[in-house]
Amino acid sequence: MKFMNLDKTAAYKRLKKLAKKFEKFDYAGALDAVTVRGCNVPITEHLHYNWAAKRIHPEVLAALQELADEQNIIEKYKALAGGAVYNTGERRKVLHHLTRGDLVGKVAERRKDLGLFYRNEFDRSYEIIDLIHRGQIVGSTGKLLRRIVQVGIGGSDLGPRALYLGLEGWASRFHHDKMKADFISNVDPDDGVKVLSSLNYEETVFILVSKSGTTQETLVNERMIRRKLTRMGMDPSKHFIAVTSQNSPLAKSKDYLCSFYIDDYIGGRYSATSVVGGIMMAFAYGHDAFREILRGAHDADLGALEPNIQNNAAALDALIGVWERNFMGYNCTAVLPYSQALLRFPAHLQQLDMESNGKSVNRAGKPVKYETGPVVFGEPGTNGQHSFYQLLHQGTGVVPLQFIGFEECQRCDDIEVDGSTSQKKLNANLAAQIVAFAKGKASSELNKNFAGGRPSSLIYGKQLTPKTLGALLAHYENKVMFQGFLWNLNSFDQEGVQLGKVLTKKALSGKSEDSVLDEYCKILGV
Amino acid sequence: MKFMNLDKTAAYKRLKKLAKKFEKFDYAGALDAVTVRGCNVPITEHLHYNWAAKRIHPEVLAALQELADEQNIIEKYKALAGGAVYNTGERRKVLHHLTRGDLVGKVAERRKDLGLFYRNEFDRSYEIIDLIHRGQIVGSTGKLLRRIVQVGIGGSDLGPRALYLGLEGWASRFHHDKMKADFISNVDPDDGVKVLSSLNYEETVFILVSKSGTTQETLVNERMIRRKLTRMGMDPSKHFIAVTSQNSPLAKSKDYLCSFYIDDYIGGRYSATSVVGGIMMAFAYGHDAFREILRGAHDADLGALEPNIQNNAAALDALIGVWERNFMGYNCTAVLPYSQALLRFPAHLQQLDMESNGKSVNRAGKPVKYETGPVVFGEPGTNGQHSFYQLLHQGTGVVPLQFIGFEECQRCDDIEVDGSTSQKKLNANLAAQIVAFAKGKASSELNKNFAGGRPSSLIYGKQLTPKTLGALLAHYENKVMFQGFLWNLNSFDQEGVQLGKVLTKKALSGKSEDSVLDEYCKILGV
Repeated sequence: MKFMNLDKTAAYKRLKKLAKKFEKFDYAGALDAVTVRGCNVPITEHLHYNWAAKRIHPEVLAALQELADEQNIIEKYKALAGGAVYNTGERRKVLHHLTRGDLVGKVAERRKDLGLFYRNEFDRSYEIIDLIHRGQIVGSTGKLLRRIVQVGIGGSDLGPRALYLGLEGWASRFHHDKMKADFISNVDPDDGVKVLSSLNYEETVFILVSKSGTTQETLVNERMIRRKLTRMGMDPSKHFIAVTSQNSPLAKSKDYLCSFYIDDYIGGRYSATSVVGGIMMAFAYGHDAFREILRGAHDADLGALEPNIQNNAAALDALIGVWERNFMGYNCTAVLPYSQALLRFPAHLQQLDMESNGKSVNRAGKPVKYETGPVVFGEPGTNGQHSFYQLLHQGTGVVPLQFIGFEECQRCDDIEVDGSTSQKKLNANLAAQIVAFAKGKASSELNKNFAGGRPSSLIYGKQLTPKTLGALLAHYENKVMFQGFLWNLNSFDQEGVQLGKVLTKKALSGKSEDSVLDEYCKILGV
Repeated sequence: MKFMNLDKTAAYKRLKKLAKKFEKFDYAGALDAVTVRGCNVPITEHLHYNWAAKRIHPEVLAALQELADEQNIIEKYKALAGGAVYNTGERRKVLHHLTRGDLVGKVAERRKDLGLFYRNEFDRSYEIIDLIHRGQIVGSTGKLLRRIVQVGIGGSDLGPRALYLGLEGWASRFHHDKMKADFISNVDPDDGVKVLSSLNYEETVFILVSKSGTTQETLVNERMIRRKLTRMGMDPSKHFIAVTSQNSPLAKSKDYLCSFYIDDYIGGRYSATSVVGGIMMAFAYGHDAFREILRGAHDADLGALEPNIQNNAAALDALIGVWERNFMGYNCTAVLPYSQALLRFPAHLQQLDMESNGKSVNRAGKPVKYETGPVVFGEPGTNGQHSFYQLLHQGTGVVPLQFIGFEECQRCDDIEVDGSTSQKKLNANLAAQIVAFAKGKASSELNKNFAGGRPSSLIYGKQLTPKTLGALLAHYENKVMFQGFLWNLNSFDQEGVQLGKVLTKKALSGKSEDSVLDEYCKILGV
């Protein structure tokens, strides 16, 4: 496989020229009903990507296809899914797709079938979860276990939390809400204490998630919880489940009711469909629901194998993102779900995208001379409309937008006011925003003038179900992966978090020789 | 008063030159313990702003002072607080400071003392709140009213919610947690239904907040709640309080237990210290706590009157922000509170900043030729460290950082592990991050190299109390106001939200002649 920096490709030069050529392209004028119908790509059977309101001229699209081909993004995807070492810095495979199903055949290592390993862990966990759901395993004081708390940080928190909140409404409607979940992530003691104050410990299962078994925040929070349980005369080992790697200090310890395993080939931010997200989701909504998430994700993974970018939503989304970042010069991306259930989905994407592609060196460790990952932020609509949309509409810079919407709400408890339901109002707002951003509206009073020309895309489906949620999650994972290929990055390590850890240790040991660190420690009472 | 665009000032030209001169300034090398101690400005007695890790050379500082003087920011602040029309587009005064106290004497209009009006509304509300707290006013079925739900969107939601969450831990420790609060904002019916499903309606007071009395989302959610109450045989008028303007359709209606008033001189995003935030805070934590918030905010307002920017934290923070935006070319700002209680404070700042200064025309409605408000985003630390900090440390662009921290946690239920409490670990992480971002660390393996030179500031205090929270809120309001003066904007209107409203109405009436809007409506099932 050939690896090239973005700016070494022939398509790069062509795209640079096209950016100049179409600088004044009136794409808002070109945006018509035919375009809207034409620019529609399935992610899966139940979820679509519409890119009509993006600033993409057919010539640009052709050049983006050329770029995709030149960078071999589909071949690289297949190689990655097949077990090639794509986490180059840490010399690791990248196998999160395998938790959802085989894409390009089996992946083995030292005769171990890794897909089978991941799936066996699910099956092992489902057995325990069923026993707990049925009351055949109870807490240390004999009470039914009714609640779960996920204790983890970063990828062990953001993705699982986004999934959990994403299906609360769906589950409540279909009576799949088996156990309420909470999350403790921050080392700030106020985080854990707040969550714990709302719990009956006797009825709670804590899922401790740390791949390395050494995450400071998570281990400290575990100690805090164990101490509280012990003081109340309970046996913590009957209330804790570990999710970790087989060679971690937590593995096979008697301190846990049971342990489930993950390996180094699934990075934290890609672990929502592994046991990291799966066990808590199966506890909360049953394993059938989690299996549907996996099916939706696998369907999206299969769709992302398509070489024609006009039929491959993840690749197209990735390429348009690169067009906007490197050729239009936009630095940020806003994710705007018109679905309250996706409240924390932008926070997950923020990690997924910024931690994967917020890098300045390529996969071989050489500096790149072009911009890479953008800043990602977002809040649900319509809330954002009453907040930061002012800048999006009339600010001095352009922020590309990624809308997400669904025809139906999840809880199906709606009210008709003035001839329309709330769900209709929600989606009328969404449709109106796409048009307002694209087309603007001239006014002679310039503070009321909307220049338009602000590009957006829309991911939409009938309803946010486990299957569509899985597809949505995988779509963005694949988009970020493709962008990593286009930028020639290693999207799977995170060396940028290390220095902070080293200095924190120095600060805590009090042996810091750095006088600046000492001064800040004093200010902060450390 | 003289109003000038930023690029017409003499300081602008000087700063442009300085940006070039100090392009390669090794400010990380210049960052030493003496600087840390020296770059410390009080916001109030209990809250400080430290800007040692910002990229500010003494010559730059002098030019920023010159800019402040040239743009007359202190005189403009006094004029604004004194009742001059600073919301130029809508021809309105800007009086949120007055809810906290008189800054420059009384402000009257047609013989009405407006400060007195705001304070009387607080006093009226405290009477009712006390009666409800004491059980002398009960719900329509005779039950004690124990919970509140704020129904509002934008400024009626984000600021109040940030304040409420900001003091939950403090209140629980000192037994000031009188009533639990929830919030319904989104028109997405899943938002309201989720909140309502956790309530006992008989024990709940709903605070309906809409200044105009016409906010679509809020009125629809009110209808939904009223219908549910009626169906359960309850009298909604005994469970609803209105916060609105005196001339709104909701004012003096018998549909409400009582109504409290605000006026057009307090914009939504500046209304957290008016009855919009005050009533729910007084319900939740008692009016003494809310009065402390006002005191803290007023203290910060007084501090912001200081003409020497080295003694005026809000002005200095504003000027450094302009330096970074217009001279260093940075487009985003991250707000990173090392306090889980400030979980939603960045979302409030996102509105405050982006809705105030995300504009392309000056206060007279003429286009400006420089960048204005940045994109603002953020999440609490240490969570963010395990998420998007990768890009902040090693991404291709620089994002200026605003850290917030407190010596003590709120709930004071902490655990010592490996020789330090969780609170110490939290703050050791914070200190380490500031140093890591500023100084970096060279490595021959470039994926492990930290270039440093990434500027940050730190706001810190002993503990997050009502008073410090009020000061923190006011600090940012004043910072944003000063930036508006520097950029010569009207920071107090939001015309950018109007077009979406117009198109939404078209979409809902089905009478849209815009074929693009129609197509998007079809896609979204409207």
